[in-house]
Amino acid sequence: MGGMYEDLKGPEIPHVLSESSIILLPVGAIEQHGPHLPMSVDRVIAEETAKAIVERCSNDLDIWLLPTLAVSKSNEHDWSTGTISLRYETLMAVLDDIGRSLSKTPAKKLVLLNGHGGNTTLLNTALRELRLNYSLETFLIHPALPPAYGGSSTEDELGMGIHGGRDETSVFMFLRPNLVDLTKAERRIPEMLDRNKHVKFGGSVSFGWLSNDFHEDGYIGDPTGASIELGETLFNSAVESLCEALSEIKTFSFKE
Amino acid sequence: MGGMYEDLKGPEIPHVLSESSIILLPVGAIEQHGPHLPMSVDRVIAEETAKAIVERCSNDLDIWLLPTLAVSKSNEHDWSTGTISLRYETLMAVLDDIGRSLSKTPAKKLVLLNGHGGNTTLLNTALRELRLNYSLETFLIHPALPPAYGGSSTEDELGMGIHGGRDETSVFMFLRPNLVDLTKAERRIPEMLDRNKHVKFGGSVSFGWLSNDFHEDGYIGDPTGASIELGETLFNSAVESLCEALSEIKTFSFKE
Amino acid sequence: MGGMYEDLKGPEIPHVLSESSIILLPVGAIEQHGPHLPMSVDRVIAEETAKAIVERCSNDLDIWLLPTLAVSKSNEHDWSTGTISLRYETLMAVLDDIGRSLSKTPAKKLVLLNGHGGNTTLLNTALRELRLNYSLETFLIHPALPPAYGGSSTEDELGMGIHGGRDETSVFMFLRPNLVDLTKAERRIPEMLDRNKHVKFGGSVSFGWLSNDFHEDGYIGDPTGASIELGETLFNSAVESLCEALSEIKTFSFKE
Amino acid sequence: MGGMYEDLKGPEIPHVLSESSIILLPVGAIEQHGPHLPMSVDRVIAEETAKAIVERCSNDLDIWLLPTLAVSKSNEHDWSTGTISLRYETLMAVLDDIGRSLSKTPAKKLVLLNGHGGNTTLLNTALRELRLNYSLETFLIHPALPPAYGGSSTEDELGMGIHGGRDETSVFMFLRPNLVDLTKAERRIPEMLDRNKHVKFGGSVSFGWLSNDFHEDGYIGDPTGASIELGETLFNSAVESLCEALSEIKTFSFKE
Amino acid sequence: MGGMYEDLKGPEIPHVLSESSIILLPVGAIEQHGPHLPMSVDRVIAEETAKAIVERCSNDLDIWLLPTLAVSKSNEHDWSTGTISLRYETLMAVLDDIGRSLSKTPAKKLVLLNGHGGNTTLLNTALRELRLNYSLETFLIHPALPPAYGGSSTEDELGMGIHGGRDETSVFMFLRPNLVDLTKAERRIPEMLDRNKHVKFGGSVSFGWLSNDFHEDGYIGDPTGASIELGETLFNSAVESLCEALSEIKTFSFKE
Amino acid sequence: MGGMYEDLKGPEIPHVLSESSIILLPVGAIEQHGPHLPMSVDRVIAEETAKAIVERCSNDLDIWLLPTLAVSKSNEHDWSTGTISLRYETLMAVLDDIGRSLSKTPAKKLVLLNGHGGNTTLLNTALRELRLNYSLETFLIHPALPPAYGGSSTEDELGMGIHGGRDETSVFMFLRPNLVDLTKAERRIPEMLDRNKHVKFGGSVSFGWLSNDFHEDGYIGDPTGASIELGETLFNSAVESLCEALSEIKTFSFKE
Repeated sequence: MGGMYEDLKGPEIPHVLSESSIILLPVGAIEQHGPHLPMSVDRVIAEETAKAIVERCSNDLDIWLLPTLAVSKSNEHDWSTGTISLRYETLMAVLDDIGRSLSKTPAKKLVLLNGHGGNTTLLNTALRELRLNYSLETFLIHPALPPAYGGSSTEDELGMGIHGGRDETSVFMFLRPNLVDLTKAERRIPEMLDRNKHVKFGGSVSFGWLSNDFHEDGYIGDPTGASIELGETLFNSAVESLCEALSEIKTFSFKE
Repeated sequence: MGGMYEDLKGPEIPHVLSESSIILLPVGAIEQHGPHLPMSVDRVIAEETAKAIVERCSNDLDIWLLPTLAVSKSNEHDWSTGTISLRYETLMAVLDDIGRSLSKTPAKKLVLLNGHGGNTTLLNTALRELRLNYSLETFLIHPALPPAYGGSSTEDELGMGIHGGRDETSVFMFLRPNLVDLTKAERRIPEMLDRNKHVKFGGSVSFGWLSNDFHEDGYIGDPTGASIELGETLFNSAVESLCEALSEIKTFSFKE
Repeated sequence: MGGMYEDLKGPEIPHVLSESSIILLPVGAIEQHGPHLPMSVDRVIAEETAKAIVERCSNDLDIWLLPTLAVSKSNEHDWSTGTISLRYETLMAVLDDIGRSLSKTPAKKLVLLNGHGGNTTLLNTALRELRLNYSLETFLIHPALPPAYGGSSTEDELGMGIHGGRDETSVFMFLRPNLVDLTKAERRIPEMLDRNKHVKFGGSVSFGWLSNDFHEDGYIGDPTGASIELGETLFNSAVESLCEALSEIKTFSFKE
Repeated sequence: MGGMYEDLKGPEIPHVLSESSIILLPVGAIEQHGPHLPMSVDRVIAEETAKAIVERCSNDLDIWLLPTLAVSKSNEHDWSTGTISLRYETLMAVLDDIGRSLSKTPAKKLVLLNGHGGNTTLLNTALRELRLNYSLETFLIHPALPPAYGGSSTEDELGMGIHGGRDETSVFMFLRPNLVDLTKAERRIPEMLDRNKHVKFGGSVSFGWLSNDFHEDGYIGDPTGASIELGETLFNSAVESLCEALSEIKTFSFKE
Repeated sequence: MGGMYEDLKGPEIPHVLSESSIILLPVGAIEQHGPHLPMSVDRVIAEETAKAIVERCSNDLDIWLLPTLAVSKSNEHDWSTGTISLRYETLMAVLDDIGRSLSKTPAKKLVLLNGHGGNTTLLNTALRELRLNYSLETFLIHPALPPAYGGSSTEDELGMGIHGGRDETSVFMFLRPNLVDLTKAERRIPEMLDRNKHVKFGGSVSFGWLSNDFHEDGYIGDPTGASIELGETLFNSAVESLCEALSEIKTFSFKE
Repeated sequence: MGGMYEDLKGPEIPHVLSESSIILLPVGAIEQHGPHLPMSVDRVIAEETAKAIVERCSNDLDIWLLPTLAVSKSNEHDWSTGTISLRYETLMAVLDDIGRSLSKTPAKKLVLLNGHGGNTTLLNTALRELRLNYSLETFLIHPALPPAYGGSSTEDELGMGIHGGRDETSVFMFLRPNLVDLTKAERRIPEMLDRNKHVKFGGSVSFGWLSNDFHEDGYIGDPTGASIELGETLFNSAVESLCEALSEIKTFSFKE
């Protein structure tokens, strides 16, 4: 079992879905990613990762894929023309509505697959709201964890390849090679953050940053070393790891 | 020019988009459509129509397609497990956020392509809000107009083929033949409405109906006569008509 | 039975109202109507129509009239000093509160009588919300249907006599002759819309317009031919037609 | 000058209204008033008082009367079928919208004439909001002040004739004699409150009460001594006093 | 019994609190009080009064003190840098959340002790909301009643010592002598208000004022005669009177 | 310089505060912490840490302490009587109001010192909102980082001493020894989470948990080994580390 949620017919739902079904909601973004990448990066990575998960493990794990939320909270890029951003209230309302609707089905496990680091804290907050409001078991997974959540970035990028950097560029190149223009890519690392012990990406002090705080180009990382091969490796490794995580989710229970 | 909005790179926006560019936003729905159709019907029809428009006339008309809003206001189906519905406030908030974001680009014309009749009045209301709040020129188009807005339905269906009826089923069959099960289809026409002069679909009196008001199956129309051929004709005719409408939109101006 | 809702004493409500009672809520507007008409036009027409309905058919149909909502959503006139407009959220909140309150009475049928075309789509949206939230049977009627909803306008006005045009001016002249100054009236028809096949009032493409888009005078139509006689005819015909509609509403049931 | 605001024509506003014009908004209520009075009491008293003010002093004081807000915050009567109540958020939104609209006219003085004691604290709060948001000079007046605001009630009623008591009943009898049924009236005074020094109507401690807290009949006072003559005296005295207050408002300025 | 609410351990709550327990919530403000007083005045007075109440009568009356709401609605001082103000919506939301949380405990009596006159009308409105939403018995008390609610001010100040005047300055001097600079204090009385019969503090007409309407110094009263001795007398008298009021609250019941 | 924000007098603000001043807002909670700790734990730790910071380094760093937000988002404890929780919308509104108010002062750096892990993701989201809405530089610091944000917990507790565990209990014992009852403390570790690779506290998969998911006692950790000495060490070390962080914040700038 498992597949595209929307392909189900209404009357099938009570028979096809069960308490152990997993509903998977990819969350993308349409936001500037510097001059070398299109605005679709997070949407594409979230959706392609989700599709690969469905292909690889939905049958075993009874996973049902929802259409991607293409647009989400991207207000760190509000300065940039073209970026489309939902206010945090709007994104919470959308998630609340989806949660309420899903809670009427037999499925009780909802997994958010988030492709955009700017959403991570809010989606984390949403997990508890959806749990409380609709008795859903809720989970948040990432193709690539943001550093603030324990994700790693390359040493060469001083751990700051967080938006349009080497890894993200590589994964997108693997998925949409024709849409990347590496000739526009340069090293854009806020080196001075590295002098800080506390106030830096992944440090003990979080701070309210915008994507043009450090450079007007609006990306943070060093995509110059990106490659399709690296992207393929990262992508496959993410899918594998997420399938593993989803099988934990499948059997997860708060009761011992 | 014209194509996928999300494929643009951030710094390209000011050069590629201009005041006469048209941004096209398909609005779908994930909602029950009876036992013969999957929940994806409105999402698929809106998106496929939009893609066909892009293919046929985006170059001439400088049309840029946004990712489809897959989920929208479907609360006439709240009774049905599986349907995913945004509250009207949420949908308005999403449109407001998209409008605000787009208003920062050079493009000033926003066209909503609505595949779900349950959205029509609200989207119509949104047109003026977006105009006022963000100085966007806003338009609403449909692959198939609801009867209340002057759309026609087959005489055989007494003008009531409004949800999962002959025409919609045919178009979807043309687009996704494998997802239709016509053996489950029956005639589901609220004949008694036809006895009314005022209170009926497309009559002078609107009324607050739910999709299971007339029959627990939740569809309204007679899909038994649906066919791929009819669907193809309707689909192509809609695309052609909408391209014609979009070329009016292209040159539309309130100033004589 | 039937009459003024507010004249009922609290303890009478459970005895006087029943499931088949109709609560009638006139919705007016206080908004500019050009130099020949006062701001009260929609308020007066809605209220006088409602009173005539009560006089003519409330006894038979058990209709109870609420005080008119004098102010509603008139933001197409936000540019004009004097117009008073509720935001759409406010109007929805008012209707929600009224619906919630009425749902505690035995009456279950709520009819909105809308005198202002700018409200039509929103009120239509409200019908379903009130139905869902409070189990009310809800209906929307108009003294004169807007063209987008199938209403007709004079051929001479190219179907665009939608705000302060011949018919509306005539009806108001019949009701308040002293408040009309026909010497200020001129023909204000956006002729160029007539060249469009799709993008026009009542066309297949809705668009977000403001009342000063076409002419700074802010009315749309040709009131020069207005007369009290025509107004009387139109008014009486509307009342008759609405009484007919209300008797359909009286016996309306979703169950065959 | 002065009269009905809504009778003005749009283009007249800038010429007719000036900074010293007073806009008068009556606020009524549709709520149970016990078995001897209809639900219209507060609506009628607010509106009739306003009309008498207009008649007596609008010419001198350049007062422009808005249509009455018939429905307001009456949630102390939520227990009673028939009462129509706006949530406090809704009433604030309505006032905000009206304030925003009026602030675009030359008039800068807005006076709320409140007929329903349940609104008093909220309207008081609104005065500052409207001042801050829209630079309006705002005032709140009452036909009869609630005790908590320094209003008096008859000694015989122990100062507790606050809802449907002797004075209110008398005023309404004067205005609508046919709608009062004094045979249903009894003494309904919460005598035990009189034993309190602090916790009572008009005492130093406010408390959250509902109209059926003290008696299921839902009125508080002793209407048995009500009369048309007393009502006439009270009504005329209120109108006179309010005209006096309005002439202070007319010349009121924060600058010495 | 009685003491600090927060010092209770979770599992103790059902045993320690009962239906007759009183929860006491001090509401302060951080807002400018002229050049002679710090911004903490209302916070300090509300909190110290509450603590003295707890010390003097919490054991008898089973009073449990919540941490002070330090910041509240101070928008009459929005013009002044440094003042921190919650919007009225925010303060209502905070109170609603606190009320909802408390309603899950056995305690059913909630008393707001308000140190800031700018909150009085809103808190009064909140009493009924909390009563209706959460079945709490709700009360509002003040260390010093605002004139509009029957509070008195010195004759010498023409009844207008409402913000930073003689009495408030004295009480604060008693509590925090080191934080007062009486050399900066002057007489700041809007004398012209005294010429009005209706439109004045405590008059029959409320008006929307800001604290800099009368003088740019932003305080209203005459603190020059303030003294620690007067402050001590006023403070002790307030505590005594409030303990008396709280013992009425303790036994208050709507049922005779 | 530096000290209590509220002790400043209004007119002093422009002279005392400057662009490099730091405003410090402690955020506490009133929520159950198991049978061994009172509900005040997070409020006390946040406030005492802030006070120690002010004492140790406010003079050097020009830090101004706001009154503690005693109550915040504690909905993981909604099941427990006594806990007081703000909805996330309310907490965001409070922060927005504080941010808006502070942005009118010369100070531009706002630091949230969060004592309650349940707030962390939301406060993180708020950092960007406040930055965007009010041009404040915003920072989030913790006396003890939650594991999901890179904080460590004792090995003995399997990294799960997150609510009422050894470290938190120790720090609170150091601050309020009389309020701790260690005889009620037991080991409450959800051992089964340790078998997971992904779905666990600090793992790659976040999940929506409530504090009684694992044990009805509602605390998570092993407080049996808590001691005042350990608490003192942890507290002092936190203060030292936070002073260090604050000196980074002091000189932090997005411009190289």
